[in-house]
Amino acid sequence: MSGETRPARASMKEVADRAGVAMSSVSRVLSGHPDVSPTMRERVMAVVAEIGYQPDLLAQSLRRRATRSVGFVVGDIANPLLAQIVQGAERTLRDSGYSMLLTNSENLPERDAAHVRLFEQRRVDGLMLSLAAEDHEETIAVLRQFDTPAVLVDRDLPPELNASAVLSDHRSGMRAAVEHLLDLGHRRIGIILGQPMRPSRERRAGVEEAFASRGLPATYVVVEGLLATEHGRNGTRQLLDADEPPTAIVAAGNQLLIGTLEELRARGVAVGADVSLVSCDAIDVTELYDPPIAVVRRDTREIGRQAAKLLLERVGEDDPGARTVVLPTTFVPRASCAPPPAGASLSS
Amino acid sequence: MSGETRPARASMKEVADRAGVAMSSVSRVLSGHPDVSPTMRERVMAVVAEIGYQPDLLAQSLRRRATRSVGFVVGDIANPLLAQIVQGAERTLRDSGYSMLLTNSENLPERDAAHVRLFEQRRVDGLMLSLAAEDHEETIAVLRQFDTPAVLVDRDLPPELNASAVLSDHRSGMRAAVEHLLDLGHRRIGIILGQPMRPSRERRAGVEEAFASRGLPATYVVVEGLLATEHGRNGTRQLLDADEPPTAIVAAGNQLLIGTLEELRARGVAVGADVSLVSCDAIDVTELYDPPIAVVRRDTREIGRQAAKLLLERVGEDDPGARTVVLPTTFVPRASCAPPPAGASLSS
Repeated sequence: MSGETRPARASMKEVADRAGVAMSSVSRVLSGHPDVSPTMRERVMAVVAEIGYQPDLLAQSLRRRATRSVGFVVGDIANPLLAQIVQGAERTLRDSGYSMLLTNSENLPERDAAHVRLFEQRRVDGLMLSLAAEDHEETIAVLRQFDTPAVLVDRDLPPELNASAVLSDHRSGMRAAVEHLLDLGHRRIGIILGQPMRPSRERRAGVEEAFASRGLPATYVVVEGLLATEHGRNGTRQLLDADEPPTAIVAAGNQLLIGTLEELRARGVAVGADVSLVSCDAIDVTELYDPPIAVVRRDTREIGRQAAKLLLERVGEDDPGARTVVLPTTFVPRASCAPPPAGASLSS
Repeated sequence: MSGETRPARASMKEVADRAGVAMSSVSRVLSGHPDVSPTMRERVMAVVAEIGYQPDLLAQSLRRRATRSVGFVVGDIANPLLAQIVQGAERTLRDSGYSMLLTNSENLPERDAAHVRLFEQRRVDGLMLSLAAEDHEETIAVLRQFDTPAVLVDRDLPPELNASAVLSDHRSGMRAAVEHLLDLGHRRIGIILGQPMRPSRERRAGVEEAFASRGLPATYVVVEGLLATEHGRNGTRQLLDADEPPTAIVAAGNQLLIGTLEELRARGVAVGADVSLVSCDAIDVTELYDPPIAVVRRDTREIGRQAAKLLLERVGEDDPGARTVVLPTTFVPRASCAPPPAGASLSS
């Protein structure tokens, strides 16, 4: 110590001794654990400030791999659904003493790969993945290279990656929505889908099943594109400009819905009168629009909670291996769905 | 190498040699730099996969503090405004080869402190701070303890922290909005504000200035609370249940607006007819509501870009010190603002 040029580094033990508390209490205060009394926090932080203690988790994590942190590769944090999933996951993780770090890929698959690598370099204990693509080779190569436990959020990846998954039963919700439209008399139904990943595949299957269940020919039209407002607008334009435009539209994603509503408003097409409308996922607009918009709903916070639980069971001592949980969706009919305008449904 | 138990670790030089490219190219590919050709990326990644190279940024960062990463302490990622600010900042940072890591405080000040500490332990090169409070002692103590360059997003912190800041001129936009309401004949105006931080203080000052500019007594009512939907609902309830309810309401935050709209709808109060309404910040609902809702608007992506620029100039060799940039807000009048119902404006 004496003649060295390096400054002496206070230890966590020193903090515990001076504060007259256990080492584990110091650790809990510094990791932001929720079950710490204000008095304990104050006591520990006073000593930390006094002696200038700097915990060096990085150096620790080089010795034992346990940073008690989880990395969430988020496809698009501007998507309110993902914000709710993040919230649900974060609360569950925090209750177990884990912090969550996020990245934002803006739905660009090459960023997913870079973000997985970034988290690996930061030695997170686990990964949550809401990837921008299911078949991006670089992302899959990076995931294969590392052995960090991972949970997929609504994505199908090759099983050899050994990732757990929380999936939504999009198929049932979509089937119920389309059956409702068919029962109202709609036959030409336009479906605006996002990227060709699991949610889109399942929703498409739900549409097929609905027509089959009513013994009807498949008179629906699907337009597929990026899960973004612009595709909602362009898809709606494409559907309405067709020779036989649909009498009902399903926007299979909340950002698609915003684009659809913008286009309908620009054309003066009245929702629930000129055209029926269903949104996949509830957002503020679906509740506050006049008329309120029918939705295929899911419990996003529960998705986050389940994803966190699946991850926590794998970062412990006894990793039980990959597990998949499927959560339900529910169709909520509303005034945005009505019988087609007189005559419109008969021509198809 | 030979008899050691530790596995041999491939070096970045080995990757560069085998791929026949420069070390800097390998580095750019691995950091996800945007200016890398697909051919170069493929070539490097093929070698990385072949020899199982794992860059160890953490070990590097223990030698030289430069992880080329920035930590953004986000108050609430469910707030779409913050998602846009993040997007603006992230693009600018990425162009300079920096990654962004996010945390979500859910507007709880004690989480801010834990998140700053988490980022410090992860050795980020810089911090962006959209804090949940300006006067939380633990957060200020943690920031004082570390010397990482920081940029505040719309917050006032003690100047000795030497943080740069991007601020919005909320005052001018709010003043213009209230002057518009006064000119329409409103006198009793209800203002629903968020937490007592810089944005709320500036907005309150704008309201005062508007009444003063028209030589009118201060007949407005302010309800202050958490920047969340629930306060929007409760605040609206409180305002409308008063003996002399306001004829116009300003919801000073997009989450407050959602609560206000929910309460108005529940009571059957028509926006733009029974009560005039102004939102601070544009969101999907303000554009798609019928009638469209007047907004005090700001360029959120520009806020993010400026914050990133302020941070980048401080993480380089020559830190020019703290700098503050103030960006404008603009009031956009719309059909949600109309003269008060006959008689209503005269009784006050």
